[in-house]
Amino acid sequence: MCAIHGNRGVVYTGPGKVEVQSIAFPELSLGNRACHHGVILKVVSTNICGSDQHMVRGRTTAPSGLVLGHEITGQIIECGRDVEFLKVGDIVSVPFNIACGRCRNCKEGKTGICLNVNPARPGAAYGYVDMGGWVGGQSEYVMVPYADFNLLKFPDPNQALEKIRDLTLLSDIFPTGFHGCVTAGVGPGSTVYIAGAGPVGLAAAASAQLLGAACVIVGDMNPDRLAQARSFGCETIDLREDGSMEDKIEAILGEREVDAFVDCVGFEAHACGCNHGKEAPATVLNSAMQLTRAGGQIGIPGLYVTEDPGAADEAAKQGALSMRFGLGWAKSHSFHTGQCPVMKYHRPLMQAILFDKVQIAKAVNVQVISLDQAVQGYADFDGGVAKKFVIDPHGMVAA
Amino acid sequence: MCAIHGNRGVVYTGPGKVEVQSIAFPELSLGNRACHHGVILKVVSTNICGSDQHMVRGRTTAPSGLVLGHEITGQIIECGRDVEFLKVGDIVSVPFNIACGRCRNCKEGKTGICLNVNPARPGAAYGYVDMGGWVGGQSEYVMVPYADFNLLKFPDPNQALEKIRDLTLLSDIFPTGFHGCVTAGVGPGSTVYIAGAGPVGLAAAASAQLLGAACVIVGDMNPDRLAQARSFGCETIDLREDGSMEDKIEAILGEREVDAFVDCVGFEAHACGCNHGKEAPATVLNSAMQLTRAGGQIGIPGLYVTEDPGAADEAAKQGALSMRFGLGWAKSHSFHTGQCPVMKYHRPLMQAILFDKVQIAKAVNVQVISLDQAVQGYADFDGGVAKKFVIDPHGMVAA
Amino acid sequence: MCAIHGNRGVVYTGPGKVEVQSIAFPELSLGNRACHHGVILKVVSTNICGSDQHMVRGRTTAPSGLVLGHEITGQIIECGRDVEFLKVGDIVSVPFNIACGRCRNCKEGKTGICLNVNPARPGAAYGYVDMGGWVGGQSEYVMVPYADFNLLKFPDPNQALEKIRDLTLLSDIFPTGFHGCVTAGVGPGSTVYIAGAGPVGLAAAASAQLLGAACVIVGDMNPDRLAQARSFGCETIDLREDGSMEDKIEAILGEREVDAFVDCVGFEAHACGCNHGKEAPATVLNSAMQLTRAGGQIGIPGLYVTEDPGAADEAAKQGALSMRFGLGWAKSHSFHTGQCPVMKYHRPLMQAILFDKVQIAKAVNVQVISLDQAVQGYADFDGGVAKKFVIDPHGMVAA
Amino acid sequence: MCAIHGNRGVVYTGPGKVEVQSIAFPELSLGNRACHHGVILKVVSTNICGSDQHMVRGRTTAPSGLVLGHEITGQIIECGRDVEFLKVGDIVSVPFNIACGRCRNCKEGKTGICLNVNPARPGAAYGYVDMGGWVGGQSEYVMVPYADFNLLKFPDPNQALEKIRDLTLLSDIFPTGFHGCVTAGVGPGSTVYIAGAGPVGLAAAASAQLLGAACVIVGDMNPDRLAQARSFGCETIDLREDGSMEDKIEAILGEREVDAFVDCVGFEAHACGCNHGKEAPATVLNSAMQLTRAGGQIGIPGLYVTEDPGAADEAAKQGALSMRFGLGWAKSHSFHTGQCPVMKYHRPLMQAILFDKVQIAKAVNVQVISLDQAVQGYADFDGGVAKKFVIDPHGMVAA
Repeated sequence: MCAIHGNRGVVYTGPGKVEVQSIAFPELSLGNRACHHGVILKVVSTNICGSDQHMVRGRTTAPSGLVLGHEITGQIIECGRDVEFLKVGDIVSVPFNIACGRCRNCKEGKTGICLNVNPARPGAAYGYVDMGGWVGGQSEYVMVPYADFNLLKFPDPNQALEKIRDLTLLSDIFPTGFHGCVTAGVGPGSTVYIAGAGPVGLAAAASAQLLGAACVIVGDMNPDRLAQARSFGCETIDLREDGSMEDKIEAILGEREVDAFVDCVGFEAHACGCNHGKEAPATVLNSAMQLTRAGGQIGIPGLYVTEDPGAADEAAKQGALSMRFGLGWAKSHSFHTGQCPVMKYHRPLMQAILFDKVQIAKAVNVQVISLDQAVQGYADFDGGVAKKFVIDPHGMVAA
Repeated sequence: MCAIHGNRGVVYTGPGKVEVQSIAFPELSLGNRACHHGVILKVVSTNICGSDQHMVRGRTTAPSGLVLGHEITGQIIECGRDVEFLKVGDIVSVPFNIACGRCRNCKEGKTGICLNVNPARPGAAYGYVDMGGWVGGQSEYVMVPYADFNLLKFPDPNQALEKIRDLTLLSDIFPTGFHGCVTAGVGPGSTVYIAGAGPVGLAAAASAQLLGAACVIVGDMNPDRLAQARSFGCETIDLREDGSMEDKIEAILGEREVDAFVDCVGFEAHACGCNHGKEAPATVLNSAMQLTRAGGQIGIPGLYVTEDPGAADEAAKQGALSMRFGLGWAKSHSFHTGQCPVMKYHRPLMQAILFDKVQIAKAVNVQVISLDQAVQGYADFDGGVAKKFVIDPHGMVAA
Repeated sequence: MCAIHGNRGVVYTGPGKVEVQSIAFPELSLGNRACHHGVILKVVSTNICGSDQHMVRGRTTAPSGLVLGHEITGQIIECGRDVEFLKVGDIVSVPFNIACGRCRNCKEGKTGICLNVNPARPGAAYGYVDMGGWVGGQSEYVMVPYADFNLLKFPDPNQALEKIRDLTLLSDIFPTGFHGCVTAGVGPGSTVYIAGAGPVGLAAAASAQLLGAACVIVGDMNPDRLAQARSFGCETIDLREDGSMEDKIEAILGEREVDAFVDCVGFEAHACGCNHGKEAPATVLNSAMQLTRAGGQIGIPGLYVTEDPGAADEAAKQGALSMRFGLGWAKSHSFHTGQCPVMKYHRPLMQAILFDKVQIAKAVNVQVISLDQAVQGYADFDGGVAKKFVIDPHGMVAA
Repeated sequence: MCAIHGNRGVVYTGPGKVEVQSIAFPELSLGNRACHHGVILKVVSTNICGSDQHMVRGRTTAPSGLVLGHEITGQIIECGRDVEFLKVGDIVSVPFNIACGRCRNCKEGKTGICLNVNPARPGAAYGYVDMGGWVGGQSEYVMVPYADFNLLKFPDPNQALEKIRDLTLLSDIFPTGFHGCVTAGVGPGSTVYIAGAGPVGLAAAASAQLLGAACVIVGDMNPDRLAQARSFGCETIDLREDGSMEDKIEAILGEREVDAFVDCVGFEAHACGCNHGKEAPATVLNSAMQLTRAGGQIGIPGLYVTEDPGAADEAAKQGALSMRFGLGWAKSHSFHTGQCPVMKYHRPLMQAILFDKVQIAKAVNVQVISLDQAVQGYADFDGGVAKKFVIDPHGMVAA
């Protein structure tokens, strides 16, 4: 039992606003649900995610007071009585999806849609609206339930701290980008188009390379993010420039279509070309059908929502998109959606990091900040900087 | 070399009209493209397909004069000089997709999107608009190119003629329904919803049973077709009746969602409930997301088109559908589209027929008609009878 | 907390001998390992398995006093404090493999080789030598650890008792036979050879049918077991009869090889033909390579052991077999071994039973006996009767 | 029609002997089998393979006079009349397996066991004993049948010649090593053991890296070959050194077993440790079971033969190996054998070469030699040099 009682975290306080506040020290419970299977973590690192921005921008029904943060790496300071295979001192990666390890979906490896952790629907996450009410981890301390099942223990704590800039990305965006590529059918020799050069897009691009892709093309409207993509060997397409996408792809590949397409943008997509600036939620999906070869697969890690109160038109508010589905049908496409089941990937991706086969922190341009810098981090990220902000609440991450 | 020169076939002569006319005897060529790899077939049986109806209803740009028919079984009467493993007298099933057997897609088993048989786009078929110009087979004789690759030879001609009512369905709807189930992830113990009780829907239902499904539910608005589905052990839901779909499914399964969903309707879908009668091209896809459990797959053998000149509104004319894609995303669904690559399935399904493991002709209610009865067959089928019409141009099918 | 304290079970007391004895009432522990995650079951049914016979025949190092039984179905009478999703009164199927649900292998669905339940090696089972020391379940009461993870709850207890003859087979042989078929690549239209018509072989044959196989051939030397196989539509080959196997297969299939081969015999195989009666541990594997078509897969649910103290020659004592591996290599075969991970299959197979899509109890010829009849059951089973003995310790199974 | 009539090739003339001799200029036929679907190639490069050595060492029944060579890259100088999608001047890679593209196996992608190219058994190759009698390609000119199906055309002839040292490896060893890894389940993050550091072993090691393996360990007794493996980032184990294999693996990985094992040695394996020098055909397979983690897969591209007239003992002469199969069974291993179906992999691996994602020529240490140097190349290769010899019969390969 630990004697610490203080805690501070990043709190959503209304559209456009986050604050660092004192919050409750975590307990091994959620409301009146006991969590003897849980652990308390001292947070080693916790990242700001693009999907946090959806809430902060006021595009969701997130309530004021919600503690943010679902990308968490930590050190165990207390184990619930039913934890059997972890111990105090272990450094662990927390998958953003909370899963019980005991339901049908978890047993099938579908931990992103666990049936026992969210009364409202399958699937839960830390610090996220409509995802079960679990407290977020952009904080000093956090509770993780079903710890034996959920957590990935790093083999050596010292090695873990040395590589923490990379390992911190195992909780979400590295597996998420990787899952997008896997579901798009990326493999050795593939040509791949990654829509979006935000952190998930860059993680997908690095994942495609790890999977052996022959050529990875990243498209975005943000020149800094495209430069970041080029820094590790990707080809890029600036969507603000004129000309047909097929022509641009042909100039790179010698072919007018790619084998695989990964949508790392989601419902907040904007039209390119003359309409840029205007939201066009189906624009990436329609591009996917246009630019992917017949027989190709389309991986969609980018978030699409069931309701979008902030959408421009009535259909989009209901989550209805205008998709040119017939084009995809004519090309025998398949479409793969949903939150990444992190557990399916985090162990092998950890191995790739520990054996220096991937430089994921460089790829997404990790910048470590303190907890107090988190508010500025949110603002900068919303402004489009080509960085992935990693909060270091205890100053444990070496410079 | 055969000495026959006459030929007759079913010809599209304008919206709502088909006629049986004299047509040219087939040659081993298409325009100025030589087809020494082809064979000439005496047609043993050739089926009327729901997708023929799209043309006949005037929903496509099919030109007057087009010879219809892509579901063909025949006996070889002449082999091109490059044919090596077939001989005159063999009785063979013709996959509706024409494929070269030599391109990247064919080598990957994706024969529905062959790159060498249609200058306009990947994929071709007999007697179909925009599908490469190959002459249809609702006729006495037809030419099949790349015969060694495309054709499935029945092991014994006499046995083949005995089972022709079943075997004739290998050219399209049995594999197509089966493919819908496979891509929906149907396997032993699955619960399955089949949208549409036309011939493809019934074939999908029988396929789901062959795949070991625990329970197959078929939904339609046509009571005769639903009765047909019940005749071989399916559960049914009459979409004209009031009440929520989830309640109806729960009454059957004890659960409110199915494991797997197969859309056998396509773009000509109609709204159910109070709006029935009115076209609603995305209604089946939206139901799929509503009724399929999280983590489930949605197989979509039903046709969606890139352009629909006859659609009710402008968006649908462009093939754009209003899909509640966010709902699917929240449930981690995957969507699998495109024409069935018949060759992937026809041999094992033939085996299932020859060893009496499936009664597919009974399931879809085959009715054999003469070539001259084809015009009436089109009319009856358009009227919604629960039958699959099989044309027998030479009176070879025993009563 | 329950107030029952008596317990009786089937105990191995030396080569060739089993007895029903008073045994300890189960506790939520194994030695000094607490099992708060466990439940105590009142055993509803528990089956005698062919692999129990290996111990009883003295072919293993099983110690006298070992309580037998790993095929268990029961009703929960007590839940450990960490059990969250089960309750007293639930009727559940117990996979014979014990698994923690928290290790790398369990997370990958490989519950047959769990890393946390057997200090000696991956994988554990109830009542089996070298499998972790967990107490067997051919008894009135038994403890099941990691209950939330391991157990399959039947949706309705009354329905479960009605179908218990079938459902009791979910703990081992139905999934085991099914796994053999799955790893052999059996699917719709396959031709399949099942080596061995004991209960696992018959379960594999029924599984092949459920998977849609076109033709299932079962080979054995025991005419009663072959008759049993024929009773549900299998073809059979009597290995005592003269003639080449290829000829016999051709007489059935018209081809001299099968698509898929399932070895349901294992290391206690005997040579057929002139050498029958003599053990020949590699004879089934060598037949598999001979009779399976090039490109086929060979599923091997039959047990092969690392050490066989009772073997006829020195090599076999070390578990070394003389395999014609080059023949398999020339035919590009793959070989799939190991204990079935029951959890991968038990839920869908339960559905197939509950919706009456499979008659597995009839296929393996279940005979229900009392606990006191177990000794005779072992003797009869060893004598080769074509029956699967199901012990009903509390008289809960309706006649 | 070309006017060239001379031809020279490498001919096996008896155990231990090869010679460069004048041979017949190729025709579009094999005996009295016409091959209008074939092309005549001017050989650009053709590699000496370890499996050629089996013949040259007299370990097979290869007849004197056999023209060797199955690793061929060439430029088309004549097309048969039925070739449709290739033309004179194209530079193409020839898969070593000859396949018709029209049989059941070819349609399933199993081109290594084509049913129509070898009367004796499924599968054929150029210049190899018992593989259909097709003339080998270690020569100036060679005929390739079913050219539209078999050949991989390089997109740009000039680029192809620039990268020919890498591209020449697409005909066999790069896909073969890759196939070994794929069937062993290698993927991102895997730990892999490659048995054998000959060219196939080194190609497997490079393939494992391309597939994203975390750590690749190569074992051999030849220090030069081990040094070659280290040159591109592999870990190595020298089998001549004392100590347990598990200890050596633990020193590298921190674990005593690997995730995946690839046998690139085959039946001519030698025992390690005190018995080295003595043949022990099952030694690699037994090591595989010992060193691969439970649940792992074992890929076996190394050749095992049905008959081995030169074997040390009677069992091995019949192709029978003494395998500790029970150990593999206890660990739920699967074993994947057979010749690589090159066509499944050559296109994506070509892309990986053309986009500079893999340096396969460096990995296997390609040395280009003239046709006249081939005899010395065979001798050097048999002596164990860490090189892959590529014959350049026309001096087309730039220095």
